[in-house]
Amino acid sequence: MVIMTSEECHYSTFKFAAFLGFGEENVYSLKTNEVGQINPEQLEQSILDVLKEGSIPLMVVATLGTTVRGAFDPVHEISIICKKHKVWLHVDAAWGGGLLFSQKHRSKLNGIEAANSIVINPHKLLAVPQQCSMLLVTDPDLLHRCHSRGAEYLFQKDKYYDSSYDVGDRYLQCGRKCDVFKFWLMWKAKGSSGFANHIDTLMDTAEYFEKQIISRPEFMLVSTRQYVNVCFWFLPRYLRGKSNISDYHSQLQKVAPQIKAVMVKHGAVMLNYQPLKTLPNFFRFVSQNSALTRQDVDFILDHIAEIGDSLFR
Amino acid sequence: MVIMTSEECHYSTFKFAAFLGFGEENVYSLKTNEVGQINPEQLEQSILDVLKEGSIPLMVVATLGTTVRGAFDPVHEISIICKKHKVWLHVDAAWGGGLLFSQKHRSKLNGIEAANSIVINPHKLLAVPQQCSMLLVTDPDLLHRCHSRGAEYLFQKDKYYDSSYDVGDRYLQCGRKCDVFKFWLMWKAKGSSGFANHIDTLMDTAEYFEKQIISRPEFMLVSTRQYVNVCFWFLPRYLRGKSNISDYHSQLQKVAPQIKAVMVKHGAVMLNYQPLKTLPNFFRFVSQNSALTRQDVDFILDHIAEIGDSLFR
Repeated sequence: MVIMTSEECHYSTFKFAAFLGFGEENVYSLKTNEVGQINPEQLEQSILDVLKEGSIPLMVVATLGTTVRGAFDPVHEISIICKKHKVWLHVDAAWGGGLLFSQKHRSKLNGIEAANSIVINPHKLLAVPQQCSMLLVTDPDLLHRCHSRGAEYLFQKDKYYDSSYDVGDRYLQCGRKCDVFKFWLMWKAKGSSGFANHIDTLMDTAEYFEKQIISRPEFMLVSTRQYVNVCFWFLPRYLRGKSNISDYHSQLQKVAPQIKAVMVKHGAVMLNYQPLKTLPNFFRFVSQNSALTRQDVDFILDHIAEIGDSLFR
Repeated sequence: MVIMTSEECHYSTFKFAAFLGFGEENVYSLKTNEVGQINPEQLEQSILDVLKEGSIPLMVVATLGTTVRGAFDPVHEISIICKKHKVWLHVDAAWGGGLLFSQKHRSKLNGIEAANSIVINPHKLLAVPQQCSMLLVTDPDLLHRCHSRGAEYLFQKDKYYDSSYDVGDRYLQCGRKCDVFKFWLMWKAKGSSGFANHIDTLMDTAEYFEKQIISRPEFMLVSTRQYVNVCFWFLPRYLRGKSNISDYHSQLQKVAPQIKAVMVKHGAVMLNYQPLKTLPNFFRFVSQNSALTRQDVDFILDHIAEIGDSLFR
């Protein structure tokens, strides 16, 4: 049995494949396009190849909002292919799913309604305190069939009330903290329009951040922004416009870690970096804090440029 | 591959066997003695039988503090058998493990030091707020080998500090709430002696509870108490001393649910009931609240007796 996903999917796909006994080697990673999306034709070809091998294409994991670049897979097209070949479609909208609350940006999630299962983490974009993760499935009885054990000391059949409210047996853990209560409370407090404002502000700030990166010569965009993720390099003077020199890649690889070391010791800005496939270390700006202003963005970029200029002359 | 455990083990053993792909049918339940413990000779015979079938005895799950009766498996004897046959010994001390803090009662855990892995839930006996569960393994690198994926956006190899403190990759979930902090804080506040007093008080209260059950004619003990669990029946007058009548079992089965229905509507006492194997529905008193007094115990028993007497004349 084979699980198919994008090479930029979250690593938890590999982890659950190992954990559930499918094996990581049965997760096939599909190459992505220049902004990090699955190519639907390539997915269909991969399903046909799996069938030709005599194996079963069990599930496709599509991502709405990849971790690093914030890419959105074309879920609508993917869902048509999954339906045609009777493959389960799981949509990992852990990061992107919060967009549901924004009239302006929710179209990025088009096609999600055709999924068999969806994950959305309100603790990500919607800033609900850690942890709060939702798994939605279309079959209302599925979780009970998969997870119930009917422990007699908990799920007595001779209770005097309607025990359909005893939902513990639907879950892996049974007794646990009710994390979704935090989300419910926040929704009551802020309203759907409060979440929408939060999201629209984050998207505006990210757009401003991207424009600054494009307009300033010391920075370079990794790929076109699709979400609140902005991925960029700081370029030392001697590397600007020099992408053709032989050790450009290895030189650039060293830049972000050194800037980050100074930045963390300084204590004003915390920004992550990582490589991705053949791309050398780059910074990833990603914010779930809608109180962040354009002035803050300017401060962050000035700060990085100042450290970069002093380290790399 | 076969997992061996007691027929009174926690149902999570079956759940993880299903979840990890071993299959529930490969969990063999061993019959227990009259108080709910595994018989070591029977365990060894079962291991030999598995080997004879040509299968692999993978793991034994021993329980220190079973959920319903609070039974303690003879872990020392079990560990010798596991070592001899090279079988992994997992000790489920979720409920009983808190006894470590009591000089007076910790001998119930003797043998736990020989386990390959141990679970202790401070949110149970030690009353740390839900949820707080610890998995201890003897091999310090095991969790990393099993769970790490080395995601490049988190576990960069070119960090400027000692990244051995980045422990997220050892766990299934990676990013999560730090539940053990609650336990640490409580330990700092109460001290080991505070936990010891808590436990010794709970054990004293349970002993008093058991004595009352034995001395009052309207109650009957299910089996000798080993822990803070006290399992008992309320006996309607017409069933006292009548265990030889043909419908004794089915009559007794109906008693606890009816008393509980009235009790919950009344709102003063909340006490669970369940059947166990061939034993009809009984009440299970189990407390992690060391503020509970002997007067409270008297109140609980009087309350049950009063409801029982009015329902069953």
